[in-house]
Order: sequence, then structure tokens, then C-alpha cells
Amino acid sequence: MWTYDKKLEYPINIKNTNPRLAKVIISQYGGPDGELAASLRYLSQRFGMPDQKSKAIGTEELAHLEMVGTIVHQLTKNASIEEIEKAGLAPYYTDHGVDVYPVSAAGVPFTAAYIAAKGDPVANLQEDLAAEQKARATYEKLIDLCRDEPDVIDPLRFLRQREIVHFQRFGEALNGVHERLAQKKFYMNKENC
Amino acid sequence: MWTYDKKLEYPINIKNTNPRLAKVIISQYGGPDGELAASLRYLSQRFGMPDQKSKAIGTEELAHLEMVGTIVHQLTKNASIEEIEKAGLAPYYTDHGVDVYPVSAAGVPFTAAYIAAKGDPVANLQEDLAAEQKARATYEKLIDLCRDEPDVIDPLRFLRQREIVHFQRFGEALNGVHERLAQKKFYMNKENC
Amino acid sequence: MWTYDKKLEYPINIKNTNPRLAKVIISQYGGPDGELAASLRYLSQRFGMPDQKSKAIGTEELAHLEMVGTIVHQLTKNASIEEIEKAGLAPYYTDHGVDVYPVSAAGVPFTAAYIAAKGDPVANLQEDLAAEQKARATYEKLIDLCRDEPDVIDPLRFLRQREIVHFQRFGEALNGVHERLAQKKFYMNKENC
Amino acid sequence: MWTYDKKLEYPINIKNTNPRLAKVIISQYGGPDGELAASLRYLSQRFGMPDQKSKAIGTEELAHLEMVGTIVHQLTKNASIEEIEKAGLAPYYTDHGVDVYPVSAAGVPFTAAYIAAKGDPVANLQEDLAAEQKARATYEKLIDLCRDEPDVIDPLRFLRQREIVHFQRFGEALNGVHERLAQKKFYMNKENC
Amino acid sequence: MWTYDKKLEYPINIKNTNPRLAKVIISQYGGPDGELAASLRYLSQRFGMPDQKSKAIGTEELAHLEMVGTIVHQLTKNASIEEIEKAGLAPYYTDHGVDVYPVSAAGVPFTAAYIAAKGDPVANLQEDLAAEQKARATYEKLIDLCRDEPDVIDPLRFLRQREIVHFQRFGEALNGVHERLAQKKFYMNKENC
Amino acid sequence: MWTYDKKLEYPINIKNTNPRLAKVIISQYGGPDGELAASLRYLSQRFGMPDQKSKAIGTEELAHLEMVGTIVHQLTKNASIEEIEKAGLAPYYTDHGVDVYPVSAAGVPFTAAYIAAKGDPVANLQEDLAAEQKARATYEKLIDLCRDEPDVIDPLRFLRQREIVHFQRFGEALNGVHERLAQKKFYMNKENC
Repeated sequence: MWTYDKKLEYPINIKNTNPRLAKVIISQYGGPDGELAASLRYLSQRFGMPDQKSKAIGTEELAHLEMVGTIVHQLTKNASIEEIEKAGLAPYYTDHGVDVYPVSAAGVPFTAAYIAAKGDPVANLQEDLAAEQKARATYEKLIDLCRDEPDVIDPLRFLRQREIVHFQRFGEALNGVHERLAQKKFYMNKENC
Repeated sequence: MWTYDKKLEYPINIKNTNPRLAKVIISQYGGPDGELAASLRYLSQRFGMPDQKSKAIGTEELAHLEMVGTIVHQLTKNASIEEIEKAGLAPYYTDHGVDVYPVSAAGVPFTAAYIAAKGDPVANLQEDLAAEQKARATYEKLIDLCRDEPDVIDPLRFLRQREIVHFQRFGEALNGVHERLAQKKFYMNKENC
Repeated sequence: MWTYDKKLEYPINIKNTNPRLAKVIISQYGGPDGELAASLRYLSQRFGMPDQKSKAIGTEELAHLEMVGTIVHQLTKNASIEEIEKAGLAPYYTDHGVDVYPVSAAGVPFTAAYIAAKGDPVANLQEDLAAEQKARATYEKLIDLCRDEPDVIDPLRFLRQREIVHFQRFGEALNGVHERLAQKKFYMNKENC
Repeated sequence: MWTYDKKLEYPINIKNTNPRLAKVIISQYGGPDGELAASLRYLSQRFGMPDQKSKAIGTEELAHLEMVGTIVHQLTKNASIEEIEKAGLAPYYTDHGVDVYPVSAAGVPFTAAYIAAKGDPVANLQEDLAAEQKARATYEKLIDLCRDEPDVIDPLRFLRQREIVHFQRFGEALNGVHERLAQKKFYMNKENC
Repeated sequence: MWTYDKKLEYPINIKNTNPRLAKVIISQYGGPDGELAASLRYLSQRFGMPDQKSKAIGTEELAHLEMVGTIVHQLTKNASIEEIEKAGLAPYYTDHGVDVYPVSAAGVPFTAAYIAAKGDPVANLQEDLAAEQKARATYEKLIDLCRDEPDVIDPLRFLRQREIVHFQRFGEALNGVHERLAQKKFYMNKENC
Repeated sequence: MWTYDKKLEYPINIKNTNPRLAKVIISQYGGPDGELAASLRYLSQRFGMPDQKSKAIGTEELAHLEMVGTIVHQLTKNASIEEIEKAGLAPYYTDHGVDVYPVSAAGVPFTAAYIAAKGDPVANLQEDLAAEQKARATYEKLIDLCRDEPDVIDPLRFLRQREIVHFQRFGEALNGVHERLAQKKFYMNKENC
């Protein structure tokens, strides 16, 4: 179980209302390679994984989900109707007001089809490595789109950096699994294959 | 952000492998009224809500998600191929082995279309009240289906009971919002309506 | 079965072409809390409900679905390609021209994942109460977005008002169920819970 | 708008509980070629269609939707837990009890992706012709699967027959559109193509 | 199996970057009536069809899928961030950069719910006829939206023309099936209907 | 464009009707890690990739898609209604007869949400590596489930082996990209990150 600590993993203080940026950043909340996808992937996989990495990283991804939600909230909470319309956020506003809701930038609700848990540690860890690279790529796109807003770019850079650290840690976990496979003829080398 | 405590909110010790029960209980992991839907709903809504209830309950629902995942894991981890096939779990096994994956009992991947955040505290709290009743109803159906397995029924009853407590707390939150509305002509009574 | 009466429940006469408004109002046709969701929810639930309210309200929601479709149709039927593009409706036009099609404002096709029928009258009626509040909230957002178009705001206000009336009626139905529960120890108080 | 007449288009009186059949017949309620798809398709298209056929047939499809819901309800309302499990209906029961809910036989919630409205009368009518043939084919599959239940086969045959009648009527409508096209160089023969 | 020939079925040479057009044309890549839907429909149906038409046309639709992807790629590969934003393509860029990804113009990922294979040659061929008309209608809408770009309109007209040819060929196939039905009382005229 | 060669990449000659196996093997046709997902992923990504590997492997995956469809077709084409029901294939039969249709083993229609194209060669190639491992894991699960059918296991083993070869080739492609990155400070090392 989890205990909530009333602080963010990294501080977020955005002074300017900017729904245009919220519209794209929401993808790291509920989009294909966002933080919900990440935390759900690792926290689901962990029941079948041989070590504790998935659980630890999955818990950190929850903190990132909170950070992204906070960015979106700060960018929109004081937006006027006119600002919302100008930013192309009227469709989102129609169904969610300025609440935070798990959709992609395109407005598609989150689906677990984005993630996998295969009952196979090697496949799961390759999925995790891919997930971290895809999240990194998305943060780079977002940084491209936020070029004039240092208050927003700063936490996005932090989040991008964490993906690279996680990529490294999942790489280590995969090496560990391969070493055990080499010793034990486990997992992949079944008799019937 | 959250800290992980290495214990379950309520103990789960299932002695018998039973993939038939896992097949239906998974719905409270990734189904329409399951614990992922619950935690995601409250943790998303909370950015726009006037008090801290959504955050606290959302955090507890994460613990329930972990409990349901643990039940599914214990029911399936030692299942043979023959047991899996007999339980109708072969389709799930094909794509997920005996990992835990967020689907409904019918096998449909989780979608955020199950939940709402409307930018309106009254609507959000009514959504939450409905969610708790729907989760309660699902646990009752599951208890019907698990009639011979006390190790499984016991935590399901605990989870069902927590839904009723949450229903009560969201009811109190809704009363609080209505009282503020009566004082301030806030939220619903806009001039233009 | 139903008989079609060739009139709307409430008159709609929109003089100005305005695809920008159509783009958001379509959400009450095929979006998460729209009239299709409402009518399908009540007309599906009614097979298991103890009284006739779901059927009557479900039938009225069909009339509201027709009203919303009529609004969208009148706002777009004479739009030029330039007006459609300026309003951000080119993606919709690509796949549907100026026909009426059940999507959300974001362009996501309607899914029954938005609605529930739980085999439990208390849960169903709480779902219905939530649905009415969510529809009310959506109409208020739409009224915000249509501020300069009295021909459109007028029927939207009528529709919003009907949601409040339905909320009241489902509340009465829920009271009725609770009274029967108090008398008969029915529905929720099973021996095995 | 519609008026509800408290009778079915065709009588349904099923004496035997049979959840196995309900599991497949539900597809004509909420599946890809079912009656919800049909009524929603025609009632949505009709705003842009040159005559009243879509409206009339769409209204009849609502009556068919009610018939299919009634069949499912009569087949399941008195089913025991054991009968439900034996019929493979436990996943459905988990989330919907014995209520009627719009899913396909496979358990996938209805999506509007099954239907089209293209802003083009010829394309719409071809879509309608295909829809009627696909519904006919589904009823024939269901009749195959219900071979021992005359109380169920009888209304399924009626519904199958109505699809053939509708196919004929949409064929006539398409001929009418083609005749007008021949006269007026309308719809398809734009200058820029 | 297939052999790739390194050429397009029809030449595409677009000189101007124009992400606004890419945003709508992508629908013929991954939208409801696009080339992926077409090729997947025919290549899936063909296993049960009495002749080779589905296979041949399905293979040509793969070539069309490649053409549409090439158009989208040429229209966006050199686009600046500013051009992407101005064209409303920032949400797409967030998750896909300027890669080609199978979505509709609205941004909804491709789903096989758009297509049918019914185990019934008559229903399948009617589905195919409808598909060709819906694709034709979409190309006409796209030609409307591309009015100033002859480099883009030219291949779109070619693709539109191919749909009409395929419509003709599926019509011939349907006639062939009907003739065999007339001779053999096959497919539709089962004893139990 | 592609030319169809009228042969399979690897021969398939299944003597026994066995719809139980078809029900799970269909996942490699239209499921999350199946051959449709693979071919669509690589053929979409290739427009933005620096070499020809994606195109070549994407074309081979089309051949694998055909092989999997052929397996499903041979396993079901002569199945009786009773065999279909006993195998739990009645829901599939309801909507698709014994045609081949792109769903997962659970019966969920294919969605492009399973795949990614990120506008970033490193992320795309990691996605591809993961895809190959997930496909390998699925084939191993299927081989587990097909234990008594050598005619089916033989082509499944061939397909599993090809995934391992593709994994190797995508690994080489990733090395190539990293080498170019080391030389040119390209792709990932943008000034603004």
C-alpha cells in the first residue's frame, strides 16, 4: 500500500496561464506513453517479476503522474473562456471543464491497450525499455512545443531525465534476468520449443 | 507523491489455485467499476476539488488495486495449462501468461471512458457516489461467484465494506458543497443560466 | 415499441450557420454524458428495474437526442468549406461531411463504456443520478461557449432544465427502492455478505 | 420525438431459462451489426438524407432493439448462479448481473465505430444495404446456435425477415437517388473531380 | 506472401510542406474508411471467399496505403514547429512527431471495428461495396479541402478513381455469387430459415 | 507497392479441425502483439526511418499475417456448430462465422493503440525490439496450448523463430543509429534539452 506525502517530487510553479500547452502536455497524463501508462504497466507487471524494480519505479511514476496533472492544472485553472477557445481546448472544456482527465493530446481517453504484461520477464523488460524511450521522445516533443515557457520546460526536463535513469535501471534488470537464464536454462528455453 | 509500504491494507492468503475465480475478479482490477477506475477517477478529479477527500480516498483505492492484483496473482501463479484451459482462461494466458493485466472479466482492456471529471464539484461527487455503489454491486456479484472459497471471500468482503464507507464520505463531501452553494450562490447558479 | 411524431419536443430555429458551436455541441449527441448515452442507459436498465421510470425517461432522452442532432444539423448544413476549416471542423468533415455522427467534441466515437447497467437497482439509480448531473454540467459548459447565440442557448437551457427534472425523478425512484429495502431486507442485505 | 407504446412489435414468450443463448443473442443488442447499430445509423444519417426512409426504418430498429433486449431478459432473469457459470456468462454477470447491457457476444461494449454517416447519400445508402445484409447473416448464425429453442427461433426469424424487407427499401431509396443524380448531375459529379 | 517493389503505384511529388492537409489526409491511412481498413477487410475476408478478387484488391489497397502514407510524409517531413502548431497538428506531433501513424483525421487510432467479415459471401460483398463508396466519398471531401494544391489533388483523384473501379469489380463478384445461389440454393436458403 | 506470390512463406497443412486452438491463435492475427500489429508498426514507421529494415521486415510480417490467417482458417473451416460451441467459439461465430477477423484471443477488435511511431528512431527501434520479444512470448504461450497438434506447432515454431531473427536485426539497426548519434550528435542531443 501507499502513503501520500503532501509534496511533489519536483517543484512546479507556473505563473502564466497557457491552455495551449496544457492541451499537449495532457498526453503525458493519459496518452499512449504517459505517466499513467508507465505506472500502471510497472505496477501490474510487478506481481510476476523476479525483483522489486518494477514496484519502485511504478511508485515513482505515480509521482510523475501527479506532477503532470499539476502542470496541466496550473496552466488552465484561471483560463478564461476566450483563452480556452483560442487554444483549441473548447472540446476538452465541453466534457471536462478545467479538470484534469486522462486523455492523449488528441483527446482520446486512456486505454490499457497501450501497455503490456506478457507473463515473460524478458518481454516485459523489453516493453519497459521501449516505454522509457517513448516517454523520453514525448518529453522532447513537448519541450519543442513549450519553447517560451521556462516554468514549464524546467519540470519537463526533470521528467525527461528520470526516463533516462529508468531506462538504465530496466537495462540492468534485463541483464540480471539474462544472467539467471544463462545459469538455469530458465524462462525461454522450454523443452517443447 | 507516494511512499510504498511493503504490506497490504488487508491480509490475503489464498491457499488454493483457482483460475476460474481469477477470471472474474480481474474485473475489479481493470474493469468498468474496478479499483483502477476508482483511484484514477479520484486522483484526477482532486486537482479541481475543494477539499482533500478525493486524494485520500484515491490513495486508498491504489491499495485496493494492489489487493485485487494480489488475489488474482495468488489464484493463478501455480496454475497448470490444463487448469487454465478448464477455467476458460486460455485467451488471457495467450496474451498475458499469468501476469496481472488491467482488463474486465470479459477481457476488454481498461479505458478511461469508464470515468468522468466534469469540472463541476457536484457532478464529480455524484459520479463518485455512483462509482462506489457500482463497485459494491460488483463485489457482491463476485462474492456470489466465489461461494466455496473463504480465503477469497474474506478480502472481497473487506473491499465491499470499504466502498460503503467511501460512499458515506463522498455523501458528506456533497453535503459540504451544497452548503457552500447555499451560502455563496457558487458553482451551479451562474448568471447566464 | 415507439411511434414517431413528426415534431421536436421543443422548437429549434437557428438562423446563423456556426460550425464552431456544432463542434462542441455534438458531444451531447455522441459524447460521454450526451443524450445517446442517457437514452441507451435507461432503455437498457429498464428490463431489470422495478418501475417504469427508466422507460419513460429513456424515451424522452431519445427526443433530446433528436433535438441535439437538429441543432448540429442547422448549425452546419449550409456551411462553406472555408467556414468548416476556420471552425476546426475539417477532420469531422473529412469522414462525415455535414452529416450528424455520434462522437464527442474531441471526435471520439461513442462507446457504451460510458454507461452502466449493474443488475442492482440501487447502483443503477445512483448511476442515473450521476448521469443527470454530468449532463447538466455539460450543458452549462456549452452555454458558456455559445454566449452570443440566443437561438442556440434557448434549446440548450431547455435541455439543461430537463436534466434537473430527471435528477429529481431518479431521486424519488431511489427513495422508493430504499423504502422497499427497509421493509423486505431485499437487494443489498444478502445472507452471504 | 417518439411515443412509447407498451407492446412489442412481435410477441416474445420464452418459457425456458437459457443463458447460453443470451450470451450470443446479446450481439444483436450491442454488437457490430445489431439493432442499436442499426437504429443509431439510420437516425443519425436521416438529418442529411433526401427522404424519410431512414427515420421510419430507424424507428422500427428501436422496436427491434427492444425485442432483442426482451429475449435476453427472458432467457436470463431466473437463471441461477450455476446456470450462469455453466453458460460462460460469469464475466457478464460480474459487471452487469442479469441486466441487459449493450455488448457484442464477445463482451466488447458497443462503439459507434461500427457505423458510418458520410455526408453523401449514395455512400450512406450503400452502408445501409451492407448493414441489413450483415444483420441478416448474424440472425442466421444465431438461428444455427438456437436450434432446439422454438420460442427463441420464432422472433429471430421475424427479425431476420425484417432485415430483408429493409434491404429492399434501402435499395429502392438508392435507385431514387441515382435517378435524381442522372437528372441533375448532383452529389457525385462535382466539377473538381 | 508478398514481394515489395520499390515504386509507388502512382507517382507522388509534393513540393510544398503543408501539415494542414496532412492532418485530414491521414484519415485515409488509419481512419474509418481508409486504405488500412480496406486492405485489412479484403485480406481477412478472402480466406472464406469463393474467388480471388478479395486477395487481388486487398493487395492493391496495400499499395494505396503506401501512397497515402507517402503523401502525409511529404507534406510534413520538413515542417517547422510553427507550421505544425498553426496547422493544428501539435497534438499529433506530441505523440508521433512527423512519423506516419494510423489514426483518423480526428486523431482516433485505427480500430478493426470499422470492418466486417461475416462468414457470409453476400454480406461480405455488400460490406465491400459500401466500403468502396465510403472511401470514394472521403476522397471527394479531401479534394474539397485540398483545393489549392494540385500536387496533392492529382494522386487523390487517382485513388478516388480506383475506388470506383473496385466498386465495379465487387459488384461483378456479387452477381457471380447470386448466380451460384440461384443454381444451388446455397448460402442463404438454409432449411432451418 | 507489393506483388502477391501465391504461396505461403512456410507450408501449413493442418489435418484436424480444432476450433479451440483457432480461438487462441487468432491473437497473433489481430491481438496486441500479433502479425497485423507488427506489419502495421514497421510499415508505418518506415517513412521516417534512416534505412530499409522496417520495410523489409514489415513485408515479411504481412506474410506471417497470412500464415496465421491460414492456420485459423484450416482449423475452423469444417467445424460443426457443436464443435464451435464446445470450443467456446460461439461468440466469434455469431459475428464472423468461420471467417478470419482481426481480434485478440479475448475477442477484442484490433486497435492501433497497440503500436507506436514516435518520430524518433531510437524510440521506434526500442518499440520494435519489444514487439519482437512480446510476439515471441505469445508464440511460446500458444505452443504451450497446442501441445497435441504437431501440424499446428510446426508453423508456430517457425514464426517464433522469425521473431528472434527480427529482434536481432532491429538490434543491429539500433546499433547503427547509436553509432551515427555518436558521430553527429544527432537525434537525441538537442541543444534545448
